[in-house]
Amino acid sequence: MDLIRDLAALRERISLIRNQGKEIGFVPTMGFLHEGHLSLIETAKAQNTFVVVSIFVNPLQFGAGEDYEDYPRDLENDSRLAAVAGCDLVFYPVARDFYPSGYGTFVEVQGSITDRLCGASRPGHFRGVTTVLAKLFNLVEPHRTYFGQKDAQQCLVVKKMLEDLNYNVEFIIMPTVREPDGLAMSSRNKYLTPLQRKAAPVLYQSLQKANSLIDNGERDGKLIKELLECNIKTVPGAEIDYIQVVDVKKLEPLSQLAGTCLIALAVKFGTTRLIDNIIVEV
Amino acid sequence: MDLIRDLAALRERISLIRNQGKEIGFVPTMGFLHEGHLSLIETAKAQNTFVVVSIFVNPLQFGAGEDYEDYPRDLENDSRLAAVAGCDLVFYPVARDFYPSGYGTFVEVQGSITDRLCGASRPGHFRGVTTVLAKLFNLVEPHRTYFGQKDAQQCLVVKKMLEDLNYNVEFIIMPTVREPDGLAMSSRNKYLTPLQRKAAPVLYQSLQKANSLIDNGERDGKLIKELLECNIKTVPGAEIDYIQVVDVKKLEPLSQLAGTCLIALAVKFGTTRLIDNIIVEV
Repeated sequence: MDLIRDLAALRERISLIRNQGKEIGFVPTMGFLHEGHLSLIETAKAQNTFVVVSIFVNPLQFGAGEDYEDYPRDLENDSRLAAVAGCDLVFYPVARDFYPSGYGTFVEVQGSITDRLCGASRPGHFRGVTTVLAKLFNLVEPHRTYFGQKDAQQCLVVKKMLEDLNYNVEFIIMPTVREPDGLAMSSRNKYLTPLQRKAAPVLYQSLQKANSLIDNGERDGKLIKELLECNIKTVPGAEIDYIQVVDVKKLEPLSQLAGTCLIALAVKFGTTRLIDNIIVEV
Repeated sequence: MDLIRDLAALRERISLIRNQGKEIGFVPTMGFLHEGHLSLIETAKAQNTFVVVSIFVNPLQFGAGEDYEDYPRDLENDSRLAAVAGCDLVFYPVARDFYPSGYGTFVEVQGSITDRLCGASRPGHFRGVTTVLAKLFNLVEPHRTYFGQKDAQQCLVVKKMLEDLNYNVEFIIMPTVREPDGLAMSSRNKYLTPLQRKAAPVLYQSLQKANSLIDNGERDGKLIKELLECNIKTVPGAEIDYIQVVDVKKLEPLSQLAGTCLIALAVKFGTTRLIDNIIVEV
């Protein structure tokens, strides 16, 4: 497996790979890989002849006071895990090469899909995401790219950017990978104290309860939201950022569930912010 | 020569061309081709094995009250001229396919290079330019792209976008092509009344006078600007939008000329806005 930090070296390697007629699967990550990432890499390997994983903690998608500096980093272990999962090339640029002095170009998806949910809690976050990905897609020139359903809103925003800007890249979403107790895999789980870690599965448990309710015929969006709120509040130390029952296209709140619905939430345990979601067909 | 309007058909054709190992030269235009465009197409033909010309009057780069509706269009004549100049494929999308309902992604270069000069007179103009070009570059996947020096600021902004977003596209600027009396070729020259057309060469004449002054040792930016102003004001009906003596990298006004300087101006004749510029090495 190749490890490339330099942008020109990556370009040269990609050009070679494409000239060989290989199909490139691309998994962009911020590193500190977990089984969620590895499932993306494994799927990319199964569907392509060459797999690129990028590892870059993107300063542009962190707000002031967020965890950019503290975000966990472990390139050595990540490389080992990526190689085992089938990665052929790890690209790990440094921030000063990726955003050189005087950098000034931004890619932004506008509208309700970036304004709501995580977009409301983290202003500028998705602009940072779409800008870094536009750059990475231009550098890696992938045929297919892989994202996890855990970041449901990110999936929606990136898919919209790819379509709007006519990127020739197939967008593939893979299911959320969970710990045995249901907690969605996340690099940020590392931040949790033992007590918080014990409490965190309440996110998925409450989503499952909402799912049961809907299975039994409940269609009242507000009531489902209240149930989730009530459930999460039973856990000491859980501070709700948002709970939303929305349509899956525009993220508009649903008073009555219909069609494909997204139930998404963000909850803070101390300074650690966790997200999770389910999609339900009604 | 191929004429393609449909985006999917273009994608298919480009994929074929690239798989044949051809190198693609790309000339994006708004049509109503003149000798300036043709020089770009001819150069693209000399430097590449396949030449794509896009013809698309991009609504996104026109402001309210500007000439989007009136902008001259003549696809039939454009196709004939493009073919003669060496074009292999004309891409002429329609606006509703290019910006479908719900379109919401924008590419923006921020800072002095988009705020000043034409950016100050036409807010949002360069955002429209960079957005349409990001889309076109993703669709056409060119190896090289060709722009005219007449649009000096546009060249600067597009080059910046290509660099910042890591597009794998070589950016080539060709000299301004002029009428025998010095007027820079522009599709908008068509708007001029006979009287305005007779007056319009004052733009280039005054730039040439400034050039002589600099050749003779003048370095005072303000004085050069005043000379240009004075010259243009002698012509009845010429209304100055801006005259600027700036550095060629950040477009910062120069009180003392040094290095590579851009002298750029925009002048209105009635509702017709013309631009021109020269670059001087001091």
